[in-house]
Amino acid sequence: MTDATAFEEVLAAIRFTADGLVPAIAQAEGTGEILMMAWMNRDAVIETLSTGRVCYWSRSRGGLWRKGETSGQVQRLKDFRVDCDGDTLLLIVEQDGVACHTGRRSCFYRAWRDGKLEVIQAVETDPSVLYGQNHHGHDHNHG
Amino acid sequence: MTDATAFEEVLAAIRFTADGLVPAIAQAEGTGEILMMAWMNRDAVIETLSTGRVCYWSRSRGGLWRKGETSGQVQRLKDFRVDCDGDTLLLIVEQDGVACHTGRRSCFYRAWRDGKLEVIQAVETDPSVLYGQNHHGHDHNHG
Repeated sequence: MTDATAFEEVLAAIRFTADGLVPAIAQAEGTGEILMMAWMNRDAVIETLSTGRVCYWSRSRGGLWRKGETSGQVQRLKDFRVDCDGDTLLLIVEQDGVACHTGRRSCFYRAWRDGKLEVIQAVETDPSVLYGQNHHGHDHNHG
Repeated sequence: MTDATAFEEVLAAIRFTADGLVPAIAQAEGTGEILMMAWMNRDAVIETLSTGRVCYWSRSRGGLWRKGETSGQVQRLKDFRVDCDGDTLLLIVEQDGVACHTGRRSCFYRAWRDGKLEVIQAVETDPSVLYGQNHHGHDHNHG
């Protein structure tokens, strides 16, 4: 059982959407690299703050998404920040391995350069290692 | 007139919401600091890539929001990145002055520490300097 009352102040500061969600940016501690952006609901916020392990809300699966549950690529929470109008969160995390389901450190591996989208980051871990041979890795929410 | 055809590849890679929007994270070049998160529509993407000055879509005003138009706190685009599933953008920017309408460098100036929300960044520029004496600074979309 998590004690939601301990988090009343931060929950009140967050402006969830009509669907009860808020976008959360994950930034690597130390390097400052942006790893990914995903969504949280109220329960995901409470679980993340309670356990220190980042938990999102998977919009595709409609359930809590404990980052790393399948892939082992856990995010440990180092700092939890709320923006000026409370409609976006910034999570400073320690990332185990890679954050992206493609096996790259960051999900933001494509850049618009010289009039085309260029891949600027290499695959570090084969997705089949992260998800097993039968997983096609199309749904990063399973990470 | 902007030539949208030049941006066909990147526009096709972006998965806009049903409202035609996509969240865009602004990160400071060099320091890696996350400055803000805002939304773009198709026209904002085209204008930003065409001009090299960041332009968002203001959901509150329902119009293009050329960052710095009122406040002078312009963001110059240094790199434009798209995430793995195309539903979030990362803008690497050179920020003139502060990004937040409160006069702080970053909008993410509140952190959850020891069971309470703590202000971790000081005001660098008085909002009245950014928006004039009659502006209350409640709508950062005017920045």
